[in-house]
Amino acid sequence: MGCFNCFRRVSEDACVVKRLDFTYIAVAKAALTSEQLKQHQEKTNFIIKVPKGTRDLSPQQMVVREKILDKIISCFKRHGAKGLDTPAFELKEMLTEKYEDNFGLMYDLKDQGGELLSLRYDLTVPFARYLAMNKLKKMKRYQVGKVWRRESPAIVQGRYREFCQCDFDIAGEFDPMIPDAECLRIMCEILSGLQLGDFLIKVNDRRVVDGMFAVCGVPESKFRTVCSSMDKLDKMSWEDVRHEMVAKKGLAPEVADRIGNYVQYHGGISLVEELFKDPRLSQSQLALQGLEDLKLLFEYLRLFGIADKISLDLSLARGLDYYTGVIYEAVLLESPAQAGKETLSVGSVAAGGRYDSLVAQFDPKGHNVPCVGLSIGVERIFYLVEQKMKISGEKVRTTETQVFVATPQKNFLRERLKIIAELWDAGIKAEMLYKNNPKLLPQLHYCEKADIPLMVIIGEQEQNEGVIKLRSVASREEVTINRESLVAEIQKRLSES
Amino acid sequence: MGCFNCFRRVSEDACVVKRLDFTYIAVAKAALTSEQLKQHQEKTNFIIKVPKGTRDLSPQQMVVREKILDKIISCFKRHGAKGLDTPAFELKEMLTEKYEDNFGLMYDLKDQGGELLSLRYDLTVPFARYLAMNKLKKMKRYQVGKVWRRESPAIVQGRYREFCQCDFDIAGEFDPMIPDAECLRIMCEILSGLQLGDFLIKVNDRRVVDGMFAVCGVPESKFRTVCSSMDKLDKMSWEDVRHEMVAKKGLAPEVADRIGNYVQYHGGISLVEELFKDPRLSQSQLALQGLEDLKLLFEYLRLFGIADKISLDLSLARGLDYYTGVIYEAVLLESPAQAGKETLSVGSVAAGGRYDSLVAQFDPKGHNVPCVGLSIGVERIFYLVEQKMKISGEKVRTTETQVFVATPQKNFLRERLKIIAELWDAGIKAEMLYKNNPKLLPQLHYCEKADIPLMVIIGEQEQNEGVIKLRSVASREEVTINRESLVAEIQKRLSES
Repeated sequence: MGCFNCFRRVSEDACVVKRLDFTYIAVAKAALTSEQLKQHQEKTNFIIKVPKGTRDLSPQQMVVREKILDKIISCFKRHGAKGLDTPAFELKEMLTEKYEDNFGLMYDLKDQGGELLSLRYDLTVPFARYLAMNKLKKMKRYQVGKVWRRESPAIVQGRYREFCQCDFDIAGEFDPMIPDAECLRIMCEILSGLQLGDFLIKVNDRRVVDGMFAVCGVPESKFRTVCSSMDKLDKMSWEDVRHEMVAKKGLAPEVADRIGNYVQYHGGISLVEELFKDPRLSQSQLALQGLEDLKLLFEYLRLFGIADKISLDLSLARGLDYYTGVIYEAVLLESPAQAGKETLSVGSVAAGGRYDSLVAQFDPKGHNVPCVGLSIGVERIFYLVEQKMKISGEKVRTTETQVFVATPQKNFLRERLKIIAELWDAGIKAEMLYKNNPKLLPQLHYCEKADIPLMVIIGEQEQNEGVIKLRSVASREEVTINRESLVAEIQKRLSES
Repeated sequence: MGCFNCFRRVSEDACVVKRLDFTYIAVAKAALTSEQLKQHQEKTNFIIKVPKGTRDLSPQQMVVREKILDKIISCFKRHGAKGLDTPAFELKEMLTEKYEDNFGLMYDLKDQGGELLSLRYDLTVPFARYLAMNKLKKMKRYQVGKVWRRESPAIVQGRYREFCQCDFDIAGEFDPMIPDAECLRIMCEILSGLQLGDFLIKVNDRRVVDGMFAVCGVPESKFRTVCSSMDKLDKMSWEDVRHEMVAKKGLAPEVADRIGNYVQYHGGISLVEELFKDPRLSQSQLALQGLEDLKLLFEYLRLFGIADKISLDLSLARGLDYYTGVIYEAVLLESPAQAGKETLSVGSVAAGGRYDSLVAQFDPKGHNVPCVGLSIGVERIFYLVEQKMKISGEKVRTTETQVFVATPQKNFLRERLKIIAELWDAGIKAEMLYKNNPKLLPQLHYCEKADIPLMVIIGEQEQNEGVIKLRSVASREEVTINRESLVAEIQKRLSES
């Protein structure tokens, strides 16, 4: 495997990235003479690209990204959350033992003397660290920021090694299931607001999962590892998961089959009622506690008007180790759910749950703060919105410029500079070409291409008469106004549109 | 140096950070029994803190930070800039040789297999990489993001190892000094808009610096290293800089003295005119080119109405290696400039310049895109705004909640849940206590503490009569309204306030 022109070997990393189509190999494909080739070889001793699993966001993408983030953040604020920011990296020891199986996927910083550091893996552990460090007993906070995971970026579309998470969490000792229900309500508000089509939120409880494992005969020492197998059920068939449980994790086949029976269950409040009466599951006090809470949760969800969006799903496990109670995961359904028909999931876009003992892991006295929260996966949503816009052909403006200052004649640079400064002084978004003597046509083209609504035109005649032309780019209508009423006239037009 | 209670040694890192007061040593100061002490020692085998030179931003700080960023970004948009985002880390080879002397200060990632990566050091080099990678010949973009530098964080107040930069750059081949003047105009708009007091923007040109070195007798091979000494003039006296030039950099004393003569010069357009006639400096063609551009620049600055804010300062060098033309740096003046009195600088808050050959370093064919831009240092500004707010006692709201849903009686949780869902449905920002049966007083306190303007109160009497109470928290006035007109009434009140 080599570079197209200079025939140097390309590392395996570069190849993977190339296949994923988010890189650019900095070599020209044109034929080169041997002298050119030699120079070229010297110059291109590197491939110009972004690191594997990361990407730039272009101006077009930034506009889409910001629209999505605005909707998410305004929902968080509607629910009274405060903002928080934490560093991109933490002391390595702060992150150790919080993610169990996934710990190998952390980005570590090089030991350059001083502290050992790792890039944050999520926003939840830094939040717990913040609470413990500041001895906060309660807090409703949101945080939006990048997190980094050294996963193979090829697995699923829209999965990167650097990605943005939007988190909302409620920390504090409260009456059961009220904050939990609000988290689910927030997920519904955001997913409805983003108009991504129909969605479903799967709910379960870690205590129900553990109780189910216990009554199925899983040894307690294997709870976490079997849980992480079960977590793969959205990507693998039950047969493959069963195989992993038996062959790799050493479960007895009949134990796996008992689990296999439960993981098929999904439904609403009536399923909760049924499970209370399940002869095997009802043997587990832990499972009964979980079911008790789920029952209450479903009642609150009904009052919140979102019970139809939520489904108890015994196959839901959630990979992260820190969950202790209710867990949930939102999936988009490819087409609107139709009664009696199977709907196909296109993957998880938001998830979360209750983690009641994470803060204690940071507190030297073991003081604890129960927490519940959710995380919105922006990349997946971004991918879907982008696809939708491509299909609909919707155009986005990448600038907000309102007025363009133009001239059809030479020697008007100084006048244009004075006019544009006047507009900026008035807070008007304005641009002009950085040329001494531009021709009129490129100035018109610039406005049309950038969708700038208004154009101010100054020329010799206008200057002599103390007037100026104002042109609507879309309608091509021009009016001549007094030079001194320029700002007022533009502000009037902008406020009307 | 040890921990207060468990007597374990604290690393030098931890001590430095503690002195800087942005950490928290997670040990209780209370007296402990020997058994407690043992448990404590086991538990506190770590110090709970953020990495050296980094910090969390609390909700209060986030509000201030967002206000500052909003003002900066809206200025960038007023000038027609497009948004861009790049990854937090780049391939190490992309960053190598771009910062010369400062290169040791980069955060490298650990080699965990695959590519060698470093955290970005600024937003300029990633922008140049983006332009080259996408073969863009022109672009006006802004970018806001964190950058990381392994500097000793103790040097200057408000200097961190992780900090936020706001960059605006204009890439493309244009007529001279028009984009450069706009960059200075943007710096003025932002610094005026933030109301940080009087400021001054020092301007120079790398060609004038190099020309000055040449005519003073600095060997060409020492231009860059002497330049980086000169860059320290805002932190060190001329005597110390001179000593460094002579003793460390090996300049002849008379050469250093000639430089010492020039670096005292500062002034406006008239200084430019004088320097044209300077018998020594006018020997340098390079310096004359720089002066020619500075003359034009000052003319445009006058048309932009900001010439009085700009001062040509021959001591300005700018440390970064990639600048090729005009350079500038904004400093805040401690008190409003008074005629005839010396004003004291409190440090640089924004800086930038022209870098015409950086993009070519990324382009395999050496194609170039001239660029000019600026970077706003948010931490320093943030520190000043925070100090100002502390002095004035100004309070900030950390949430935007508009309505609180309360009850004075037991058994109204379900009713409160229904009401709050109705408010959320209408887009109203609403909160309630997560308690089944809260007492009225804590609910009132919550509203007062969080500055929530409106309170909805539901009780038995109200429910029986189909009404609800609406209370203004500030005036304590209560009105009883029909239950079904609740949302409309709240929206009316919110639109009026």
